[in-house]
Amino acid sequence: MQLNTDLYKMISKAQITEQLPEIRTWYEHLHAHPEPSFQEKETAAYIASGLKKMGLEVHRLPQNAVMGYLQATNAIGTIGLRAELDALPLHEQTNVNYISQNTGTMHACGHDLHMACALGAAKLLSAHKANLKHNVLFVFQHAEEKIPGGAVAVIASDFFKSHKPDVMLAMHSFPDLKAGEVGFRSGPYMASGDEVDVHIKGPGGHAAMPHKTVDTVLTAGQVLVALQQIQSRFIPTEIPSVLTFGNICAESVMNIIPREVLLEGTFRTMNEKWRKKALKQIKQIVQNTAKATGADAETVIRPGYPTIENDKNVTAKIENIATKLLGSKNIHLLPLRMTTDDFGYYAQKIPSAYFRLGVADSNGRSAGLHTPEFLPDPKALETGVSLLVQIIQNY
Amino acid sequence: MQLNTDLYKMISKAQITEQLPEIRTWYEHLHAHPEPSFQEKETAAYIASGLKKMGLEVHRLPQNAVMGYLQATNAIGTIGLRAELDALPLHEQTNVNYISQNTGTMHACGHDLHMACALGAAKLLSAHKANLKHNVLFVFQHAEEKIPGGAVAVIASDFFKSHKPDVMLAMHSFPDLKAGEVGFRSGPYMASGDEVDVHIKGPGGHAAMPHKTVDTVLTAGQVLVALQQIQSRFIPTEIPSVLTFGNICAESVMNIIPREVLLEGTFRTMNEKWRKKALKQIKQIVQNTAKATGADAETVIRPGYPTIENDKNVTAKIENIATKLLGSKNIHLLPLRMTTDDFGYYAQKIPSAYFRLGVADSNGRSAGLHTPEFLPDPKALETGVSLLVQIIQNY
Repeated sequence: MQLNTDLYKMISKAQITEQLPEIRTWYEHLHAHPEPSFQEKETAAYIASGLKKMGLEVHRLPQNAVMGYLQATNAIGTIGLRAELDALPLHEQTNVNYISQNTGTMHACGHDLHMACALGAAKLLSAHKANLKHNVLFVFQHAEEKIPGGAVAVIASDFFKSHKPDVMLAMHSFPDLKAGEVGFRSGPYMASGDEVDVHIKGPGGHAAMPHKTVDTVLTAGQVLVALQQIQSRFIPTEIPSVLTFGNICAESVMNIIPREVLLEGTFRTMNEKWRKKALKQIKQIVQNTAKATGADAETVIRPGYPTIENDKNVTAKIENIATKLLGSKNIHLLPLRMTTDDFGYYAQKIPSAYFRLGVADSNGRSAGLHTPEFLPDPKALETGVSLLVQIIQNY
Repeated sequence: MQLNTDLYKMISKAQITEQLPEIRTWYEHLHAHPEPSFQEKETAAYIASGLKKMGLEVHRLPQNAVMGYLQATNAIGTIGLRAELDALPLHEQTNVNYISQNTGTMHACGHDLHMACALGAAKLLSAHKANLKHNVLFVFQHAEEKIPGGAVAVIASDFFKSHKPDVMLAMHSFPDLKAGEVGFRSGPYMASGDEVDVHIKGPGGHAAMPHKTVDTVLTAGQVLVALQQIQSRFIPTEIPSVLTFGNICAESVMNIIPREVLLEGTFRTMNEKWRKKALKQIKQIVQNTAKATGADAETVIRPGYPTIENDKNVTAKIENIATKLLGSKNIHLLPLRMTTDDFGYYAQKIPSAYFRLGVADSNGRSAGLHTPEFLPDPKALETGVSLLVQIIQNY
């Protein structure tokens, strides 16, 4: 198998290697200074300052997002690359010397890695404006982790609209693959995620006299059971979907039937049409199951991120470049993920690809995303930067 | 209809009327100084002091109960009369000038009235030791309102054992009847009440990946639904029984399947044999419903008060006396009550009668027991004292 055929048009492997120590410095700085969603002030300033030094046109949103525009002299189009600024409310449990300095906040989803790779690509590519086929819009987006998601504000911004990419990309850490490996998937890849609150209400009363009231706790139980049919009977079997209520709460005592029971859940699916239909059906099942016991019910849906549907052509194109760079043995077909990412908003408007960068060690070991022990293998930095550079210069 | 036939053997109506102002003073003092269950120190001291002045043999338990023994010179037996010392954690909402001085604590179950009536009877009867047929053991019991119930300590005490009544009586306020009316019922009258905690346990996990864990919330819902059959399928239809879970709690969030869901409930029935069988069946249904989803389950039963089963002969005898005193139009057959009282412990060991004293006004209006507006019609004091005196001197 011959690798690297017709890659490295402008930027050589040696140039990337030379850039790595600085990228590593950025990564460690970002890891040590995590900030929560919607509070990424210092991170945004750090990124903006870096992009400016590289000569990019920098635009900042009041919500913290930073966009860096690299204009190619003879561009045939624009490629957008999304990285994320925000960290998670976790107490880091690693022993690296660049451990989080902001106790209780941690980059446990690899956003530090993604930012460092994007900065590295920006630096390397910024020296080649004259020869690049595409402009590049580097989007360092705030608040990926928190509804309504920073993507909404970015997409709505005038700067994004006036520099709108023809293709949108996001590279995200993936502990199921080793550093050096990457994964792609055409079509639906990650789920939509909506928050579903169900309030079951009644007049309340004494536990010994349920006939004088409505048993809201029992009704909540019946609603939970009835809602299983959303997945098992209502949505087509081939569309992965899951409805789970992680919380149930009555705030009562054993002998008082409460006036309200709250169910808090999440509904996820991979098809926007059936997402809408299912949310309507959830309300209908709740309403009528409650009606059967005489309870009142209110279903409040807080719409979350949409499904990420990877464009077939974009995915094929970048997978082809990745295969040339890394060899087909390091390229994986990603399994479907029922987790969510607000990158779905870009994918709804622009042909997009969300692909995964392996971060496990050479034995395939890694703590999970969103755990206090998460720590990408540093080798992933090199793979990440190389891949971004090659995708952009070869797209 | 001729009333009062062969009543008033020793104590005349005029003597009772003469005693009423002092009884009213006791009642208002007790109402103004309520104390919570197991904390009835001042109330106990007040009662003990009163009983001593009347010349009764007084015995106090460290748990606060006060017993006053009135020894008749030529007794053929002993009658026990239970009153209660404790009040409830409620903020009184009445406008009487003897309103609770202990903010947040209130005599909202009529225990002040019961104590005043019992004290009045003790005072009136104490002058007639020579002629009484029965000794009287006045039991001013602590903690009727709180499991395990003061009755347990009273019954276990050496003093109670050595002065053990042949018959045990309790007169309790009843807002469904007017002052001047009373109610009786032979056989089962009030329910047993056991607290049932159900813990549904699993490894916990992400809401989007229920296949990697066990859905403890759904399992709790299925357990709630399955447990309906305790009442509908398991216990004989003619035995009034109710199982209600007033609280359900997961302490989780919408997208995390919790490691534990707690259901807190109460099981009440009117038959001690079926009580035991049903509690066993509850555990079996919980265990196996949980097993079906793969969850672990733990059912913790905190045994509460037993059923109050009124002795047929004792009830007939005192109802007969009450009918002579008040006229049959003021005597009512009590409906079954699914509420509980630790008087059931006495009734398990001694032929007993728990009867009700009307406390509503002449229009039948009264706030409910255990509500902040509860206030007995003061006329009930006269009926209560008269009835106790007549029952004891005519039994």
